[in-house]
Amino acid sequence: MIRPDLQENFARQGIMATFGATLEEASGGRVVISAPITPAVSQQQGFAHAGLTFALGDSAQGYAALTAMAEGADVLTVEMKINLIAPAAGRLLRAYGEVVKPGRRLVVTRGRVEAEAEDGTRRDIAILQGTMIPV
Amino acid sequence: MIRPDLQENFARQGIMATFGATLEEASGGRVVISAPITPAVSQQQGFAHAGLTFALGDSAQGYAALTAMAEGADVLTVEMKINLIAPAAGRLLRAYGEVVKPGRRLVVTRGRVEAEAEDGTRRDIAILQGTMIPV
Amino acid sequence: MIRPDLQENFARQGIMATFGATLEEASGGRVVISAPITPAVSQQQGFAHAGLTFALGDSAQGYAALTAMAEGADVLTVEMKINLIAPAAGRLLRAYGEVVKPGRRLVVTRGRVEAEAEDGTRRDIAILQGTMIPV
Amino acid sequence: MIRPDLQENFARQGIMATFGATLEEASGGRVVISAPITPAVSQQQGFAHAGLTFALGDSAQGYAALTAMAEGADVLTVEMKINLIAPAAGRLLRAYGEVVKPGRRLVVTRGRVEAEAEDGTRRDIAILQGTMIPV
Repeated sequence: MIRPDLQENFARQGIMATFGATLEEASGGRVVISAPITPAVSQQQGFAHAGLTFALGDSAQGYAALTAMAEGADVLTVEMKINLIAPAAGRLLRAYGEVVKPGRRLVVTRGRVEAEAEDGTRRDIAILQGTMIPV
Repeated sequence: MIRPDLQENFARQGIMATFGATLEEASGGRVVISAPITPAVSQQQGFAHAGLTFALGDSAQGYAALTAMAEGADVLTVEMKINLIAPAAGRLLRAYGEVVKPGRRLVVTRGRVEAEAEDGTRRDIAILQGTMIPV
Repeated sequence: MIRPDLQENFARQGIMATFGATLEEASGGRVVISAPITPAVSQQQGFAHAGLTFALGDSAQGYAALTAMAEGADVLTVEMKINLIAPAAGRLLRAYGEVVKPGRRLVVTRGRVEAEAEDGTRRDIAILQGTMIPV
Repeated sequence: MIRPDLQENFARQGIMATFGATLEEASGGRVVISAPITPAVSQQQGFAHAGLTFALGDSAQGYAALTAMAEGADVLTVEMKINLIAPAAGRLLRAYGEVVKPGRRLVVTRGRVEAEAEDGTRRDIAILQGTMIPV
């Protein structure tokens, strides 16, 4: 389920359209965003670039923060840490975001990105931990 | 100045072509990568997405690590932290990467990304700190 | 339950004795370390200093990595990120560490620190995410 | 040179007294804090514990933020990332903090910690990057 104002907010992210990304879920502090792994997002060895993994994981956390806020609210990323734990190989990436600590001044969030192989098996490729600020 | 094998490595990064990014410098532990700010890389408020800032800053650090290694060597990002300190507004982003601590097992790096406005003025928008692993 | 070699390893950490810290659990990738909040570990406002929170959370992750390794193995922290989400107030801190991704070259870990109030209620005060290297 | 209110703030940090730490400089956005390496702050291999390195580096950044604020102001650490780049061996640690981006809502800071050997030679052992919030 996705709140209409979040769907509209997502549609304004040009980079998500460039990545062919989809906001699959966004409610109750939980968000899922997916995007295909294609040559257009590769790094030098053919895996998806850490920039894609980061962008999806970061956005999933931003929308997780927004699900806990009033309609029309917005956030910016203050800082984000990513640990890359396996190569981003397969047919698509799926990023999950959640709120660890909501707040009026700052929102602390956590994320996880998995890669789905051609045969449908899934493997975690990154974990993230960051801070969002309401604007 | 750019070592030919690094230029060739950069050319294999599909996401850099998608971003219209250019490897401007890569020698002696110092790297510069730039990319235009366009609607195709925007976030919801029209600024460049943190995913672009991250991708350029991360890649600049990866090539900085490679300038200190033998030809044909390659690295992967182990982890990366980014602090976003100003909106990514203007006509282009320019990312700088440097090696803080070279090593056979791990390379510690640091990065900085600036935005260049339409009138040519520059402003730091992000600092990064991370770890690369030779592969 | 605690493996004897880990208990012995912990006993060699002078800073843990200085903090009056106790290794409460260390098995199967899960570790718990606690320490009292006293004036000897305070910051300027009387809360426990972030240095204590970090030290306990970092050590809990190090021992979590060791529970997944052979007896006599040891690790060093490569890097660690901490988000402080509430003041470290109360009578004691309790840190939890877990392994996210084991590995021969690197181990990715995650941690959480809670404060226990005088009345026994518990509150999360920090989350951590880091990398350990076998030595 | 040290502003009297910062010296007084530092004196209220119980953990700094426990560590035998000294605020050596604190003015104009630059701070230096040192502490001896003793068995009371060791990790299991006899080096200084990452918790000491973190505590000194974090505090140096907090006071760096305060040098740019009005007398009597205070900050808390929102988040901090540390990369440990060499063992903390020698007779003392010396931490440096600086402000990267001042701000009314958040202050972005950077730090560095060096170890001084018995013969006086110095070696960088850690770099840090974090966020402080005025309280």
